[in-house]
Amino acid sequence: MTTYKNILVAIDLTEEAPQVLEKAKSLAQTHGAQLTLIHVVEPVGYAYGGDIPMDLTELQDQLDKAAHEQLAAYGDQYGISKDQQIVTVGRPESEIHRLAKEMNGDLVIVGSHGRKGFQLLLGSTANGVLHGSECDVLAVRIQQD
Amino acid sequence: MTTYKNILVAIDLTEEAPQVLEKAKSLAQTHGAQLTLIHVVEPVGYAYGGDIPMDLTELQDQLDKAAHEQLAAYGDQYGISKDQQIVTVGRPESEIHRLAKEMNGDLVIVGSHGRKGFQLLLGSTANGVLHGSECDVLAVRIQQD
Repeated sequence: MTTYKNILVAIDLTEEAPQVLEKAKSLAQTHGAQLTLIHVVEPVGYAYGGDIPMDLTELQDQLDKAAHEQLAAYGDQYGISKDQQIVTVGRPESEIHRLAKEMNGDLVIVGSHGRKGFQLLLGSTANGVLHGSECDVLAVRIQQD
Repeated sequence: MTTYKNILVAIDLTEEAPQVLEKAKSLAQTHGAQLTLIHVVEPVGYAYGGDIPMDLTELQDQLDKAAHEQLAAYGDQYGISKDQQIVTVGRPESEIHRLAKEMNGDLVIVGSHGRKGFQLLLGSTANGVLHGSECDVLAVRIQQD
């Protein structure tokens, strides 16, 4: 009996991504589920933007390109085909919810630092994904060195 | 290959518990994992307490007894033995973290309503469990009628 058939794993592109990918890959194998790899690029305007008019298109393009390349490298490493790799631009929580819904995902996997206090107030991706998700959410605890 | 060996499922005693239990049972079977059923009774003092001196011992005892009975009924229904049923008193998040640590749990399963906005600010058990957990946390999305 398998519980999940269509798993989405959303990663950032830090050195912590492999921990989440290992777990996701292992779960997809255990459940015989399809695994889709997602990375959400935040619009550069969110970080730099507003008051000073600038053309950020080129920077955004560079970020998108870097994200595609990194995701392709992970895809190779973890045996996730090009069709199952998605790079999208937007707010991580909203994009992950949208993709999970569009793809009829039954489980979304994200990394979590399990931080307390301030981090709880500030919110985190795991927290944001948990709230408002229409499917189950697995938060993989990142082990710090 | 199995990813989880020691799964804890924490339930409230509402009509939503079976949705969480079904998923937990199915996952434990898929992974060949041990499954422990947990319910945390909140101290009645938290709800009623402080200003007016009252002896709440009897009320607390009644709540504990009811929780044990309800958990035993679920245990029967889902094939979880008495040894693997735990009723404890305290703050749900803290108790769940404590038990997960003491028992070397590798996955904690809780129900989640996936609410947004206010609920996010107020916090929820799923949210509280996510933050500060030393193991992975699976939030099972409760399907409303």
